[in-house]
Amino acid sequence: MDKGTQLRLAVLGISGYTGAELLRLIASHPSLRLCHALGRSQVGTPLGRIHPQLACYRDVVVESLDAYDLSDKVDAALLALPHQTSMEHVSRLNKQGVCAIDLSADFRLTEQSVYEKWYAKHLAPQLLKKAVYGMVDLFPEGIDQADIISVPGCYPTASVLAAAPLIKNKLIALDTIIVDAKSGVSGAGKTPSAASHFAECSEGVRAYKMGGLHRHTPEIEQSLSKLAEEQVTITFSPHLIPMTRGILATVYAKSSDATLTAEQCTEAAKILYKDSALVHVLDGGQNPDTLHVRGSNQCHLSYTVDKRTGRVIAQAAIDNLVKGAAGQAIQCLNLRFGLSRDTGVDSSAIFP
Amino acid sequence: MDKGTQLRLAVLGISGYTGAELLRLIASHPSLRLCHALGRSQVGTPLGRIHPQLACYRDVVVESLDAYDLSDKVDAALLALPHQTSMEHVSRLNKQGVCAIDLSADFRLTEQSVYEKWYAKHLAPQLLKKAVYGMVDLFPEGIDQADIISVPGCYPTASVLAAAPLIKNKLIALDTIIVDAKSGVSGAGKTPSAASHFAECSEGVRAYKMGGLHRHTPEIEQSLSKLAEEQVTITFSPHLIPMTRGILATVYAKSSDATLTAEQCTEAAKILYKDSALVHVLDGGQNPDTLHVRGSNQCHLSYTVDKRTGRVIAQAAIDNLVKGAAGQAIQCLNLRFGLSRDTGVDSSAIFP
Amino acid sequence: MDKGTQLRLAVLGISGYTGAELLRLIASHPSLRLCHALGRSQVGTPLGRIHPQLACYRDVVVESLDAYDLSDKVDAALLALPHQTSMEHVSRLNKQGVCAIDLSADFRLTEQSVYEKWYAKHLAPQLLKKAVYGMVDLFPEGIDQADIISVPGCYPTASVLAAAPLIKNKLIALDTIIVDAKSGVSGAGKTPSAASHFAECSEGVRAYKMGGLHRHTPEIEQSLSKLAEEQVTITFSPHLIPMTRGILATVYAKSSDATLTAEQCTEAAKILYKDSALVHVLDGGQNPDTLHVRGSNQCHLSYTVDKRTGRVIAQAAIDNLVKGAAGQAIQCLNLRFGLSRDTGVDSSAIFP
Amino acid sequence: MDKGTQLRLAVLGISGYTGAELLRLIASHPSLRLCHALGRSQVGTPLGRIHPQLACYRDVVVESLDAYDLSDKVDAALLALPHQTSMEHVSRLNKQGVCAIDLSADFRLTEQSVYEKWYAKHLAPQLLKKAVYGMVDLFPEGIDQADIISVPGCYPTASVLAAAPLIKNKLIALDTIIVDAKSGVSGAGKTPSAASHFAECSEGVRAYKMGGLHRHTPEIEQSLSKLAEEQVTITFSPHLIPMTRGILATVYAKSSDATLTAEQCTEAAKILYKDSALVHVLDGGQNPDTLHVRGSNQCHLSYTVDKRTGRVIAQAAIDNLVKGAAGQAIQCLNLRFGLSRDTGVDSSAIFP
Repeated sequence: MDKGTQLRLAVLGISGYTGAELLRLIASHPSLRLCHALGRSQVGTPLGRIHPQLACYRDVVVESLDAYDLSDKVDAALLALPHQTSMEHVSRLNKQGVCAIDLSADFRLTEQSVYEKWYAKHLAPQLLKKAVYGMVDLFPEGIDQADIISVPGCYPTASVLAAAPLIKNKLIALDTIIVDAKSGVSGAGKTPSAASHFAECSEGVRAYKMGGLHRHTPEIEQSLSKLAEEQVTITFSPHLIPMTRGILATVYAKSSDATLTAEQCTEAAKILYKDSALVHVLDGGQNPDTLHVRGSNQCHLSYTVDKRTGRVIAQAAIDNLVKGAAGQAIQCLNLRFGLSRDTGVDSSAIFP
Repeated sequence: MDKGTQLRLAVLGISGYTGAELLRLIASHPSLRLCHALGRSQVGTPLGRIHPQLACYRDVVVESLDAYDLSDKVDAALLALPHQTSMEHVSRLNKQGVCAIDLSADFRLTEQSVYEKWYAKHLAPQLLKKAVYGMVDLFPEGIDQADIISVPGCYPTASVLAAAPLIKNKLIALDTIIVDAKSGVSGAGKTPSAASHFAECSEGVRAYKMGGLHRHTPEIEQSLSKLAEEQVTITFSPHLIPMTRGILATVYAKSSDATLTAEQCTEAAKILYKDSALVHVLDGGQNPDTLHVRGSNQCHLSYTVDKRTGRVIAQAAIDNLVKGAAGQAIQCLNLRFGLSRDTGVDSSAIFP
Repeated sequence: MDKGTQLRLAVLGISGYTGAELLRLIASHPSLRLCHALGRSQVGTPLGRIHPQLACYRDVVVESLDAYDLSDKVDAALLALPHQTSMEHVSRLNKQGVCAIDLSADFRLTEQSVYEKWYAKHLAPQLLKKAVYGMVDLFPEGIDQADIISVPGCYPTASVLAAAPLIKNKLIALDTIIVDAKSGVSGAGKTPSAASHFAECSEGVRAYKMGGLHRHTPEIEQSLSKLAEEQVTITFSPHLIPMTRGILATVYAKSSDATLTAEQCTEAAKILYKDSALVHVLDGGQNPDTLHVRGSNQCHLSYTVDKRTGRVIAQAAIDNLVKGAAGQAIQCLNLRFGLSRDTGVDSSAIFP
Repeated sequence: MDKGTQLRLAVLGISGYTGAELLRLIASHPSLRLCHALGRSQVGTPLGRIHPQLACYRDVVVESLDAYDLSDKVDAALLALPHQTSMEHVSRLNKQGVCAIDLSADFRLTEQSVYEKWYAKHLAPQLLKKAVYGMVDLFPEGIDQADIISVPGCYPTASVLAAAPLIKNKLIALDTIIVDAKSGVSGAGKTPSAASHFAECSEGVRAYKMGGLHRHTPEIEQSLSKLAEEQVTITFSPHLIPMTRGILATVYAKSSDATLTAEQCTEAAKILYKDSALVHVLDGGQNPDTLHVRGSNQCHLSYTVDKRTGRVIAQAAIDNLVKGAAGQAIQCLNLRFGLSRDTGVDSSAIFP
């Protein structure tokens, strides 16, 4: 891509938090231009009216998702739609020759049977092979050529980035991995519900879908298995805590070697992520804090060894809507179109 | 104790959150009367001025901790003082013939050497044998005769109540126990610090003292070992989350038997706690929420089995200042003086 | 009422926050017994299942609101129902000879025309004259004889208690009153909505229904006019702030006399509320904080004079669900049945 | 300034929230380069270690404030220092020929006597005439030539932007202005204190320094008087609410004309701010929300008329650390060095 040229984009799904976050990031990206915003509702309304915080888009009007032809009109489309809905649009965009960057779960699991076990019937299984899983820091291969890029989930991004250095370097026993994750409430989306009602979130912490029920479980396992080159099964326990943005994933595993130190783990992580400027491995004694990554595309990691029990504790903090969704999507887009990976998404966190 | 008689009490340490919580609970207890309030500062000031929320104490004036003789003046003293300071006063009260109920860590660990490894030099080791550990739901024995009662810590109360049914019934492998705990910020006390500064807590979650560094680790292990009748060592990871009150302890362990079900664990817990009206074992699928116990002396428990990995997940939610401190102290007091265990501390949670 | 006797109660409307708060207060009241709990949904379900924090009611089952006869079965009924629905049930209870204590807005406005202007058609206008407005600290007259008691709204309770001493003592100019109120989100009720969605409340503050649109405006004016013995019109601006419970009402008015001091206002308030143990007038320099009244039936007041501009600033802090709803309802019940006004509702706030 | 050239900057005071916010904004500004970071403590430490969220500054080391000569080394210095300290450094920088942009209160009040009445003795009164008050949307004159620019306070920015259209167009009675402001806790700074302790902020709202005591009162009055061309005195009531960032200022005043409508006020504001792309006047019925401006340099305004009482209610929402401090400072810097006013500070809010 020539310097100065701007990529023409469409965003499909603009009412939710992920869609809004895409719009925010596109607005401050030097090489992107929003050409079309498509939605299921509020068609005809300017984006700046739907999202008062995005006053810059006061002249962009929502178009209908019902029928569209984006061929030759845009270079890429970003989809922030519910799963099952998204696959239809990925399929349509693929036929129209538009590169589709999908933030739903529809193309994250490479095996159709796994998808159908955890989600629902897959309506475009023939495209599963075409899709590339866009975890940019660990699996960048193929993203630059892909016509369908599947952006990783929020919990998988945090969990896998934390565990990867330990697995790649065979520092832990693979059958001992537990992920205890703490998420802000925005992960539950924009639709009001009892679980996201202020009075019932504030001052409360609770787990949900424990015991192998959460759909991000197979996605985490798929990546860990790829890194391990053998099947990995984990215990995954998500918790909702009273904050809006952020995920802290705490990963537990037995060390494979009793002499393992935190410094060795930290060093392994620094080497693995040496080309990822936004993955920041904290030195000994510091612990990641979601407040240090809020609003940014950064991932903060730390490694602790409990000598008394021979366990390693890896932690990752990310902003679930940025690195866990819209920010990593933009990184995929950058790679796909020959831009530097972190272009437009390297601003610092909003602290405090 | 005759019905209608009121126990005469002193509270030592009235400026912190635990002290204030003792005062709140005493005020609404039918058989307790606050006779003396002793503090390190604000001597001469009415309690109602120090704590605007305790307007009922507008005529009780703080007396000095420097020199006092409570012999014959009170039946019992509750101590909400820092560790190391507390042991001096327990010692003095013991000489004055006053039953001491100590909320500090000074008499929780039965072995002097363990205390000195994790805390500091013990200045009253001869009293360690006299002290009874007041975990009322599991170890009520001896509390009714004790002259020194040591009230359990907040993390240990939650962690041990969750794990006890599993250990007593030999349902888990003892060398696989991990406790991932999430605490509200009031646990850090009333003294302002960076870690409890609103702007740096709100919207942030972070671990602290992981990897075997937190002082509640040996206290948890002491109780689990007593239940197991063998030495238990655990991984304990405390996290600070943006709420004021509450602890949620998530306990992980390998099932000792691949056929174990959540129902079996739940049933074991219901049996173990059948006499504890305030320990509430939730039925399948419900998860404890700190919001459901806030301001109350309740403990909510749940048990989940992850069939895919053969792990049990036990959870406990308590209010750290009530069941984790002042409320359990009042339960100890009730048992010591022949009252029904839950007298005066059985009110419902403030929800939402 | 003889000591030891227990009043038999029904609660109509048990799923919302006000209903749950009534149940909490009844449980710890020494002279009340919940005999019937009626609801629009979840009929047949135990209350302890609907409200995990009210485990004490595990054996009380919800009965239907559709058809009931409570004659001779209860002494009084408390209604926590939506306006318009409530008036039907008050009417029915009145026919059944049951004293009705209504927490809705249906009987708060004495003039039918005013009700119909701000709310909707009144379906039981003949009962308006029978209803007594239960603002216990200012207008206790008639509550002890009433068959219908209308419990004041949350904003009116805070606003009127703050302004009353100024108006009764003619300390302010009546045409200069502005009430800027800040409310926690629980005031919006239990039904999920965008306005009460955690991610859109946390870290945000906003006004709503400003400029004379909020329905509590005529209720505040009715009480202020009664105190002033002439018509009072005010500007009322409610704001939602990111907390669950509490209202802080800031009342502005011009002093009627340039020499007025804060001490004079404070003294006037102390005299007016000398018999209200739970109305606490703070001394100079202290400002009410909702955190000091949370979970309690207290009202904290303060008075400030801005010498530079000749204005008085009165503030009141209450818990909107207790003093602003369920707690004041219990005070009305106490007065109606000859109990001491604060029986069962005098516990201290949960702080912090 | 030529395109492509970068301004060389120093920041004095890097440990507080305002200093950190300056660093964040400089990092993403296309024409600014941080050359020197000076602090009172942590000299020799890399900025990226002090502020984990500013990992991009991992190689910039803190230099001492004790002795420095920045002549010819930088084009401008931004000062995020406490008042009284700041004036010394502004004086020193002025002698070194460095343009000083001061975020403290030291040069905001044009009259020495007013400063000394509300703050303390002024140690560089001779510079007061040189300083230009940098309220960029209302008083841009002179900023482009100034050697000392004083950045407005947070409350004054919100209050004055809201009131200005009403005053300039003579729509309100000047002796009736009341500002009721609600601020997030970050306004109290980074130093831990009881007032900013999480457990005592969360779930609480309270006023402070009411009745003409807050130091921002004369600063607001100075700007309103300049707009009115006569002396204006106001009642100003700041409140702390449980959120980190944001100020909502609610301004009350009597309409000067009984026929005034909200539309007229809104129109007046749109005209006044037609060149301020980041000042966004909301249309009828919408109310500003601090959540819609968080992390951004935007100001959202609304106007409401209460026909019943003849009052206008103006509201402004800003992020206190951006538009109320660091963001407006960068706008001043842009104007001073010939850049477009909003360069580098026009990103959207982080929502939710």
